[in-house]
Amino acid sequence: MLVYLTRKEHFNAAHKLYNPSWTKEKNDEVYGKCANANWHGHNFDLYITIKGAPDPETGFLFDVKKLSQLIQEHITEQLDHKNLNVDVPFMKDKICSIENLVYEIWHQLLPHLPAGVSLHCVKLYETPRIYVEYFGD
Amino acid sequence: MLVYLTRKEHFNAAHKLYNPSWTKEKNDEVYGKCANANWHGHNFDLYITIKGAPDPETGFLFDVKKLSQLIQEHITEQLDHKNLNVDVPFMKDKICSIENLVYEIWHQLLPHLPAGVSLHCVKLYETPRIYVEYFGD
Amino acid sequence: MLVYLTRKEHFNAAHKLYNPSWTKEKNDEVYGKCANANWHGHNFDLYITIKGAPDPETGFLFDVKKLSQLIQEHITEQLDHKNLNVDVPFMKDKICSIENLVYEIWHQLLPHLPAGVSLHCVKLYETPRIYVEYFGD
Amino acid sequence: MLVYLTRKEHFNAAHKLYNPSWTKEKNDEVYGKCANANWHGHNFDLYITIKGAPDPETGFLFDVKKLSQLIQEHITEQLDHKNLNVDVPFMKDKICSIENLVYEIWHQLLPHLPAGVSLHCVKLYETPRIYVEYFGD
Amino acid sequence: MLVYLTRKEHFNAAHKLYNPSWTKEKNDEVYGKCANANWHGHNFDLYITIKGAPDPETGFLFDVKKLSQLIQEHITEQLDHKNLNVDVPFMKDKICSIENLVYEIWHQLLPHLPAGVSLHCVKLYETPRIYVEYFGD
Amino acid sequence: MLVYLTRKEHFNAAHKLYNPSWTKEKNDEVYGKCANANWHGHNFDLYITIKGAPDPETGFLFDVKKLSQLIQEHITEQLDHKNLNVDVPFMKDKICSIENLVYEIWHQLLPHLPAGVSLHCVKLYETPRIYVEYFGD
Repeated sequence: MLVYLTRKEHFNAAHKLYNPSWTKEKNDEVYGKCANANWHGHNFDLYITIKGAPDPETGFLFDVKKLSQLIQEHITEQLDHKNLNVDVPFMKDKICSIENLVYEIWHQLLPHLPAGVSLHCVKLYETPRIYVEYFGD
Repeated sequence: MLVYLTRKEHFNAAHKLYNPSWTKEKNDEVYGKCANANWHGHNFDLYITIKGAPDPETGFLFDVKKLSQLIQEHITEQLDHKNLNVDVPFMKDKICSIENLVYEIWHQLLPHLPAGVSLHCVKLYETPRIYVEYFGD
Repeated sequence: MLVYLTRKEHFNAAHKLYNPSWTKEKNDEVYGKCANANWHGHNFDLYITIKGAPDPETGFLFDVKKLSQLIQEHITEQLDHKNLNVDVPFMKDKICSIENLVYEIWHQLLPHLPAGVSLHCVKLYETPRIYVEYFGD
Repeated sequence: MLVYLTRKEHFNAAHKLYNPSWTKEKNDEVYGKCANANWHGHNFDLYITIKGAPDPETGFLFDVKKLSQLIQEHITEQLDHKNLNVDVPFMKDKICSIENLVYEIWHQLLPHLPAGVSLHCVKLYETPRIYVEYFGD
Repeated sequence: MLVYLTRKEHFNAAHKLYNPSWTKEKNDEVYGKCANANWHGHNFDLYITIKGAPDPETGFLFDVKKLSQLIQEHITEQLDHKNLNVDVPFMKDKICSIENLVYEIWHQLLPHLPAGVSLHCVKLYETPRIYVEYFGD
Repeated sequence: MLVYLTRKEHFNAAHKLYNPSWTKEKNDEVYGKCANANWHGHNFDLYITIKGAPDPETGFLFDVKKLSQLIQEHITEQLDHKNLNVDVPFMKDKICSIENLVYEIWHQLLPHLPAGVSLHCVKLYETPRIYVEYFGD
């Protein structure tokens, strides 16, 4: 009996899209207004999905309050009310696209999940109309 | 040509998380305020996804109004404005987690789907930030 | 310069609609399945709106984090994961309709707002399709 | 490193469900009020999901603004404020169910995606409670 | 003790914006693609707000199930899966804007509300980003 | 016949809360993580409500596409993908709270509305749980 449990969290952050090996002109051409030098920002919605078999004693795959605490401790407290390009060690020297963010979030969270629980998906909304998902390789 | 059709239904119910083989102290420790003796409750959102090939004559995989009627008859009328621990025969003697609920809903609904239609997913939101999915097996 | 600031909070609770001075038959006739003896429940969304002039030094009408803490301390911690009919002192001996709930929430919260801040509206969603508002008097 | 990128677009359109090889009576029996001769309509929400590896230079799987432009040019400008049965060449002589719509949208969009980008899913909401997905055959 | 109770209903309908005393060219110039000859359509969300004092015996301003039945009987069953320009007697010879719709809905519903209940607001969403409200006069 | 018409627009922007006449310590004490030196950001949702009598010829209070263009030209293009503290002339030397933003948006938009149309409300969501409204003085 395999079930998938999802918890939604959120964070509010500034970022810009910028490749430091390019000229300002090329950054503007590729990224448009997302390259604005003084930053812009978003309310990000983050959905973490884990999978596994519920424990027959508790009926839980994993206590969703503990899952929420793990996500907050390892992910959203690192990102909330921060500048993703400047303030976040695990995004250092990386282009701050949501494609790269979901990959890094996956690898930040993975070591902290308990035995018997698999990470299934990291899904990140940048706006209500744009999201990226990563399921591991 | 395989398509997936999803219908959302809802029900409002009371429940508590409680393992009768444990002491009250252990229930409180494991389930926290979800173990409140006098119950709490939720607006549950239920998404049922079926899959198959549309009928070339009707353009339908399955008439979504009939799907809605099946879900209401076999699932939501059993659960709506009920106490999930006390009033629902198919949850009798089971821990009332959403992990266990999606599994039971799957098995309640499955026998009533017509030939040519496969049940693909039962997805249940307990709150807008917590949901569980079950895909069979 | 008068502005209105709204904060959304939520709580999950069990209740039933029941007038103890009536027979079970009359309760069932008036309240239908909302009178289910073993309770049902909801995810309630609560919107508190205050009004006043922003402080020129802070730009704030009132710090929204403090508003959130006041609502949690005086309202949602009293209601969340509770049985509204049984566990909540300020609903004691009152019919547990959302009409009565918004009135009681207003009077619970009002004494705790600071000078210069007026309570404007208590709005409570019982389901995404039903809500009640109270503006005082 | 495989990621999935989704863009939501929308269109507002009229349609009816009608099989021209049937009598009016049979259409009414099968499709009910969806067969209303004078049409009805919906706000359709369309989610297009693509998959592939992000470009290490840009951090993008595909520029989401370009994806939005492709969807608008090839799909939503053909459908928005139109009658799906009458005004849309690629729905000509097809029953106007959302099952058939997602299949046609898939085949309209597929030739326009660039190398390195795979179309993963076309998901179409007819109402907030009904949607169909197509993942290719 | 004055409270406001709101019920959300919905209907799916076709319409076009068209003034029959104008040329086709002027209609196209004023209404743009909303004048498409073959119609377009929407999922309309309708919010009806009533106000008054709750009945101390029931705790209800008015039974929300009865309010829902009144709205369905007098409004949404007249509009759902219809062509608003063609199929709806009370929109006959009227321009089918949401400004005119809320006014007509108000006057259709008003005579059916019971004593002690005032109609406060008719609010109609044409899309999630456009709505009109009417408060009488 | 007075109606209220609302149009929702959005913008994504960076900001911080900071009073330059205070020490860093006082800013941190008052604004908490909203004072983060390297900025944070939000997806802002903006609702503009106008009121007046519909034109009997068009059925419109005001063409909602023109309203949308006015809001975009005078408001959201000035704010979208910008740093509200640094890039926006009309927020120059003002504390960047949403209380102050709604007031400035009101005064930016007001001169551009046509005769017969009154500005009724500027409503701004900073997150899905926090919004401010301004109705003029």
